[in-house]
Amino acid sequence: MSTAATRTTGPDHLWTVDEHLEDILATVRPLEPIELQLLDAQGCVLVEDITVPVSLPPFDNSSMDGYAVRVTDVAGASEEYPAVLTVIGDVAAGQAEPLHVGPGQAARIMTGAPLPPGAEAVVPVEWTDGGLGEGPVTGMRARSQAPEAAGGHVHVYRSAEARAHVRAKGSDVKAGDRALDAGTILGPPQIALLAAIGRGTVRVRPRPRVVVMSTGSELVQPDEQLGPGQIYDSNSFALTAAARDAGAIAYRVGAVADDADTLRSTIEDQLVRADLLVTTGGVSVGAYDVVKEALSSVGDEDEEGAGIDFRRLAMQPGKPQGFGSIGPDHIPLLALPGNPVSSYVSFELFARPAIRTLMGLDDVHRRRTRATLTTDKALTSPKGRRQFLRGTYADGDVTPVGGAGSHLVAALALADALIVVPEDVESVEPGTEVEVVLLG
Amino acid sequence: MSTAATRTTGPDHLWTVDEHLEDILATVRPLEPIELQLLDAQGCVLVEDITVPVSLPPFDNSSMDGYAVRVTDVAGASEEYPAVLTVIGDVAAGQAEPLHVGPGQAARIMTGAPLPPGAEAVVPVEWTDGGLGEGPVTGMRARSQAPEAAGGHVHVYRSAEARAHVRAKGSDVKAGDRALDAGTILGPPQIALLAAIGRGTVRVRPRPRVVVMSTGSELVQPDEQLGPGQIYDSNSFALTAAARDAGAIAYRVGAVADDADTLRSTIEDQLVRADLLVTTGGVSVGAYDVVKEALSSVGDEDEEGAGIDFRRLAMQPGKPQGFGSIGPDHIPLLALPGNPVSSYVSFELFARPAIRTLMGLDDVHRRRTRATLTTDKALTSPKGRRQFLRGTYADGDVTPVGGAGSHLVAALALADALIVVPEDVESVEPGTEVEVVLLG
Repeated sequence: MSTAATRTTGPDHLWTVDEHLEDILATVRPLEPIELQLLDAQGCVLVEDITVPVSLPPFDNSSMDGYAVRVTDVAGASEEYPAVLTVIGDVAAGQAEPLHVGPGQAARIMTGAPLPPGAEAVVPVEWTDGGLGEGPVTGMRARSQAPEAAGGHVHVYRSAEARAHVRAKGSDVKAGDRALDAGTILGPPQIALLAAIGRGTVRVRPRPRVVVMSTGSELVQPDEQLGPGQIYDSNSFALTAAARDAGAIAYRVGAVADDADTLRSTIEDQLVRADLLVTTGGVSVGAYDVVKEALSSVGDEDEEGAGIDFRRLAMQPGKPQGFGSIGPDHIPLLALPGNPVSSYVSFELFARPAIRTLMGLDDVHRRRTRATLTTDKALTSPKGRRQFLRGTYADGDVTPVGGAGSHLVAALALADALIVVPEDVESVEPGTEVEVVLLG
Repeated sequence: MSTAATRTTGPDHLWTVDEHLEDILATVRPLEPIELQLLDAQGCVLVEDITVPVSLPPFDNSSMDGYAVRVTDVAGASEEYPAVLTVIGDVAAGQAEPLHVGPGQAARIMTGAPLPPGAEAVVPVEWTDGGLGEGPVTGMRARSQAPEAAGGHVHVYRSAEARAHVRAKGSDVKAGDRALDAGTILGPPQIALLAAIGRGTVRVRPRPRVVVMSTGSELVQPDEQLGPGQIYDSNSFALTAAARDAGAIAYRVGAVADDADTLRSTIEDQLVRADLLVTTGGVSVGAYDVVKEALSSVGDEDEEGAGIDFRRLAMQPGKPQGFGSIGPDHIPLLALPGNPVSSYVSFELFARPAIRTLMGLDDVHRRRTRATLTTDKALTSPKGRRQFLRGTYADGDVTPVGGAGSHLVAALALADALIVVPEDVESVEPGTEVEVVLLG
């Protein structure tokens, strides 16, 4: 795989989107697995093969509320000629009392309760008189209301084959079977299975902790008063939400002023809780772009693998980008541009795959599709740049929303797709088939 | 709309899946809106139309790092005949100092900084010598490294039209414009827009708090030792995970033993933190099905709208179901059957739409599609019941996994779809087109 070190670079070099992504994904490694409580592991990737320790169900049990009987005792039973059996007691689910069903006997049994020794089948209560002597019933009377129903006699109106309404031990899974393979993503049904076989904790790659900070002396917290030349910080909110959406545990750090010392100490403070750092702003060619300045001296620069590489990408929006790792633990850091749309598009293209790689997922990218461009006039795109325009996708058509400007956050809020215009294309006519990245 | 009260019922009456769902959705109402911090509102439905209070950008500003100039001063400028301008200082983003660009003057300006009075356009730093007198540069030197660059002279090598590289005030959104409509679901881009226009809090329907409890004296917590006749509690784990997956804040209550008093007091304790209660087990016809017994006397039964209705549905799995509302606040409650697969399928069909209705979402159901049944032998289904078989869906084909048994939680963990076999169909041949519910 080609990496930054093997490519010819220079201050004017433009990296492709694919080269940059490739370098990021070659650097970011899945997080070390940890043992988590089952519900804390939801959405995480399993790293162990799970073997079933105990057969499910662990014992032959009833699939109905009814009576556990011997087959010969109910052979030929009908409404006209019912079998009359002596009820020797109740077998409820979770009840450990031993009960033996002998000839001419029945045990009243509840769904899920173990089939008692001696019994061979279960007849549903609807096939009996429920012990009331008044013909077929639709259910049992509650134990607390009618304790006497656990004794007396029951009329059975139908015969039953051996094993009827009995769930055999191990019919779901058998001890020693593979329950789940390493690499499985744990959703509700997988959590159901793990709990069912008695696993209270499980070894998974944890959700990455992502620290998001925006930089810029012009940034003001929403709900505060804007002064001259100030704007509201939106990137730290948007990317914190986007990081969560990607599966991360995200921490939002308030906007940091354009001061290298403040930024450096803020980043150093955050390293302890970060598996990935994402900054916005301060990565371009301006005299106040302090992210570059601050990040050149975070951590030990003599240590291999440390350091942030700042690049210009052949991409619009999102030309200036920084990536590398910092601090003694080489925490990966993505330094995204500061324009709201640039930072969001950059997050989708670079930070989201990084987060999903940290999680150990195979499928790290947004879904892509082909769509027909539906618009009044041709789209224009700068030569040599891969452009990502915001659009809305439906039924194979994609329609641009807003313009190409990287500050059009209002249009972004209406978009559910990115329209990709390749580097060598400068104009796209209406009706052309284009590549689309589906957001969500 | 037909409701429970208008239909003919009796102990033998079988309700359809659609009737039951209709009754649930006719009872559950979207939660009252509350004001939430922006990031706490992620995934929630907005209940107010949001109007832009301040134009974005709030002032004319530079889209590049460069020099703010007067158009006539750079007219005809070229590399051979550069315009030489006096640099009167820096305009950085967030800097409020007044600076006026007069004839023959330029202000060094950073991306996002306000266009200073007098200036009409911005020339990117790459079109200048950056004040160094050595030809075109690729960027500015950091302010902290070279403070003198905020003065001196700059050579400009290209002309600029009026408003070049200037983002006009209000070009993104204008004060008074509609930013977002009530009903919008707040994802990262919508949160970006809200923050950008200064909204730190927003009025939304909150995520419902869903309390999940399983019932059954046979249930043991995972990681504990199974005794005779005992099984592990999986429902409370699976449905807690499924409730979160649907968008809820879910609380898992440990398994409750089959004792009506215990169950009743547990439910009463949980009412304070529940917008929806989901129980599993204890809803069938057995003598130990205490959920029915317990729920008949929770809250004030004289109060209108209180009480739980227990029904049998024309459905497999999931025949016994309970639904209603309890307590003085009429908290909705779904009493699902206890078999793991029955409870999971019931959750998907009834509890998930209830949760999403509480959230105020329009789209409350799982996505459905048609698929070709791919299997070796015909599926069989009981007459008069709508069957939901577990399957895997890919590219228009669906393949059943496991059998029809409601205890096959191992097969459930492999499924990503439910195959729907209608009430009047008893056999489905391979190759038949079937309806499929996509899980996730």
